[in-house]
Amino acid sequence: MLQKDVQDRLIREGRDFMKGNRLTDPYAADFESDQVRRLPQPPLCKAPMRGEEARVKLPMDFENLALDGDLLELLKRRKSHRVYTEENLSLLQLSFLLWASQGIKGRRGKAYATLRTVPSGGARHAFETYLAVRHVEGLNPGIYHYLPEENAVELLHTEDNLEEAVIESLAGQKWAGKASAVFYWSMVAYRAEWRYGIYAHRVALIDAGHVGENLMLAAEAEKVGSCAVAAISHEACCKLLEIDGEEEFPIYAMPVGTVKPEDQAAEQEIYRFVKEQDL
Amino acid sequence: MLQKDVQDRLIREGRDFMKGNRLTDPYAADFESDQVRRLPQPPLCKAPMRGEEARVKLPMDFENLALDGDLLELLKRRKSHRVYTEENLSLLQLSFLLWASQGIKGRRGKAYATLRTVPSGGARHAFETYLAVRHVEGLNPGIYHYLPEENAVELLHTEDNLEEAVIESLAGQKWAGKASAVFYWSMVAYRAEWRYGIYAHRVALIDAGHVGENLMLAAEAEKVGSCAVAAISHEACCKLLEIDGEEEFPIYAMPVGTVKPEDQAAEQEIYRFVKEQDL
Repeated sequence: MLQKDVQDRLIREGRDFMKGNRLTDPYAADFESDQVRRLPQPPLCKAPMRGEEARVKLPMDFENLALDGDLLELLKRRKSHRVYTEENLSLLQLSFLLWASQGIKGRRGKAYATLRTVPSGGARHAFETYLAVRHVEGLNPGIYHYLPEENAVELLHTEDNLEEAVIESLAGQKWAGKASAVFYWSMVAYRAEWRYGIYAHRVALIDAGHVGENLMLAAEAEKVGSCAVAAISHEACCKLLEIDGEEEFPIYAMPVGTVKPEDQAAEQEIYRFVKEQDL
Repeated sequence: MLQKDVQDRLIREGRDFMKGNRLTDPYAADFESDQVRRLPQPPLCKAPMRGEEARVKLPMDFENLALDGDLLELLKRRKSHRVYTEENLSLLQLSFLLWASQGIKGRRGKAYATLRTVPSGGARHAFETYLAVRHVEGLNPGIYHYLPEENAVELLHTEDNLEEAVIESLAGQKWAGKASAVFYWSMVAYRAEWRYGIYAHRVALIDAGHVGENLMLAAEAEKVGSCAVAAISHEACCKLLEIDGEEEFPIYAMPVGTVKPEDQAAEQEIYRFVKEQDL
């Protein structure tokens, strides 16, 4: 067990981190952003990590998806799914999930901001999307990087045991290994810090929630299952996604997989302790 | 300007706060949650803050709303709106926005968890919703607390100058004062800390994003405007919402207001600096 004084301090720091602008903030008066100081703005998106030969174009004809997308019904239906049938997603289904969570709809200025399908504090959109693809039509299994400006994904590498690599990257959660595709979002820190500096991180975590919620609703509209994962194994995940862990680091993940109604009983097994402990 | 060493330390701390489970975390091995220690679970929702006479029941017949709720179209349309026409929302519109962002769909166990229209880490749902109501049919202007278990809101108090109070609570952002209703979400910290302890706060910020995204999509489906606000004036906001600021504190807000297409030009004025600075 943690010592009480250590635990109390960490709880206090965690709570303070969540709070808005406090009058007692000792740094607010002296803070000046790099944007205000007219320092050059970092790129809006990460450059491709591989050559063009690694790239796969994504179809964008979402009107051809058989979406069941009425918001009221989606909100009624949406739940976490952790039992998957390991079937293929179509490339169009994957493309819609990528677009719904991080797709670019336009630009502000020449290169001031991207406008996306999710809102982001100050339109900084500091995230990159990576995929562990196991079962997607038209994609070889492996680790991919999303290129939202080109509506493409690029293969970074294959894995000898992708299922095991996914589980290891998500704190040992075995169910995640059965997903057809796992979405990972990284934070490219300076992209938000350029504008918000020491205040960038609280806002960016909220932004990650916007992204995840859109993905869950889009998955529900496709009648595939998803479940949010905040428990990321930092080092394993950085290695899997080929990111340095300091300037860019993973913050959130979402396994997505095909589901069938008969698996609802298996799904409820996860919560057996609630009954057992009479909670 | 902040001293470089101070700024560097704060940036490092902010980034570390965002990261998942690090092998270098000095606390992970000793951490044990209050849930694991079988300490009593806190209530799933805050008790009403006023007597029944302050309560207004919310209509729940959302099928009677003229929603334009196709997800693909919503994602294409959604944008931030900061120019409002100050007309009434109907009580049913407000009710749908509350339900879409924090509504309770069911329970797990007797009192283990609420199941809501948004996902939350470990189903802790550590948030309360408050409203600054200026223009809602059937509600007197004032500050309200949402009671999701009863589909009701309760009036906490009126304000002599509600517009000014809203602006002051949101870091002086004048546009927010014109909203028909402002949603404020607070964190009831121990509700999440009971399960996640020192790791609760990162996850809860992501959860706040889920809530905000659902509200923005629901507002878009109603064809009313919204704009996320992370810049909360902590002390003013605590006072406005009658919360203590330590066990419960505000984390996120969302003004919602009626809009008209002709205001698009005024909306773009906010971004004039992009053109002026040739960004």
